[in-house]
Amino acid sequence: MAKITVIGLGPGSILDMTPRARTAIEQAEVVVGYTTYIKLIEELLADSGKQVIGTGMMQEIDRCRLAVEEAAAGKETVVVSSGDAGVYGMAGLVLELVLKRPEKDRPQWGGVVAGVSAVNAAASVLGAPLMHDFAVISLSNLLTPWELIRKRIQMAAEGDFVTALYNPKSKKRVENIEEVREIMLKFRSPDTPVGIVTAASREKQTKVISTLQDFTKEEINMFSLVIIGNSQTYVQDGWMITPRGYENKENL
Amino acid sequence: MAKITVIGLGPGSILDMTPRARTAIEQAEVVVGYTTYIKLIEELLADSGKQVIGTGMMQEIDRCRLAVEEAAAGKETVVVSSGDAGVYGMAGLVLELVLKRPEKDRPQWGGVVAGVSAVNAAASVLGAPLMHDFAVISLSNLLTPWELIRKRIQMAAEGDFVTALYNPKSKKRVENIEEVREIMLKFRSPDTPVGIVTAASREKQTKVISTLQDFTKEEINMFSLVIIGNSQTYVQDGWMITPRGYENKENL
Repeated sequence: MAKITVIGLGPGSILDMTPRARTAIEQAEVVVGYTTYIKLIEELLADSGKQVIGTGMMQEIDRCRLAVEEAAAGKETVVVSSGDAGVYGMAGLVLELVLKRPEKDRPQWGGVVAGVSAVNAAASVLGAPLMHDFAVISLSNLLTPWELIRKRIQMAAEGDFVTALYNPKSKKRVENIEEVREIMLKFRSPDTPVGIVTAASREKQTKVISTLQDFTKEEINMFSLVIIGNSQTYVQDGWMITPRGYENKENL
Repeated sequence: MAKITVIGLGPGSILDMTPRARTAIEQAEVVVGYTTYIKLIEELLADSGKQVIGTGMMQEIDRCRLAVEEAAAGKETVVVSSGDAGVYGMAGLVLELVLKRPEKDRPQWGGVVAGVSAVNAAASVLGAPLMHDFAVISLSNLLTPWELIRKRIQMAAEGDFVTALYNPKSKKRVENIEEVREIMLKFRSPDTPVGIVTAASREKQTKVISTLQDFTKEEINMFSLVIIGNSQTYVQDGWMITPRGYENKENL
């Protein structure tokens, strides 16, 4: 049986893609992914003779099904995702689809090739905001009830977690981020630093460091990652820093 | 002024280190790190003519101070950490030390080169356990009061976060993980899957998938990462999977 492997490309630049990911792509006969991600690795695919299947954003399940079919038909297949494919990516979906097949028709599970996750890339752009315990929450309520997302925000706020928000805002969904701000303000000071990184590690990368009071006034979209500091996070000379210790902040 | 850059090497194998990290190391005159991490990149350092400063685990602050001194003295310097240097790594400490210097004596901040984080590497070994909102908590109480760590465990449990534990257990600290188990059991079923990955992506890598009821009976040490599933996580054919949706589990 041929193998199917899910690959995290990292945040965007080919400089952030691991050699393991590159080799897996080079060895594949079929490369499947959202067209934007396929473009990130254009130089690896051009004139390679590989079959490349790029589809639009909302066709995730179809895309993964197609990939599993290709592998089941005997072709070495990779599915590519940006960031780490194991975080809100394609890893789970592909693995579920593989395991749903009768054993005799199952492609071999080539595993997940871990990549640099978007949250780590965004943090590196802001300074060092993620040095202590953190929570990662997606504000997209397409697959998760908003009640549950809200509860998680509350728990993250109450537990003084550094809090990273994926999918913070879309054209249709603009109110949720305001609710996050209100919940966080119940537990944290209005001047808590909040970093917003858009298109981390890509050409159009932007970063803003704001405060819990004001951050929702900044440009935030589906390519943004928002990192809300904990009670110890501070900003110095434009860098956002969360100290590792709760006791040693002043006596380095 | 020379530049100081903090680099995440990824989980262990040189195959998981990004080209950006490799280039930064190649361009450095001085490479500073915990000796175990220095060993991971031996082949990049041998006969390179670089000054290599390796120190023991407990000398973190001294090590970072030394690195900042070298950069301030005019040498291009990199500090290497395993995983992502921005997660419980050296990024924050080095940045803090740079910014504490008077401006005229400050080396240039070369930034953090993000790496594949240990939690992403461990997840890839287990299957796809991290596909939904998650919390990352270190159980080390050297720099954080145990009360706060316990509170965070409680919040993560109550919010049904997939929960990743760094530094889960050491020779001296064996009871905390039992307390985590007890807190989690108040909110989650005893058969919730728990994955334990030790030395992810290194030669001696091991993985175990257990349950919330039983996982503390398994071998867990300071090289282990523990991932506790959420209420939807399941195990099939030895793989741990957290579905992305709360509604679509049954109808892929």
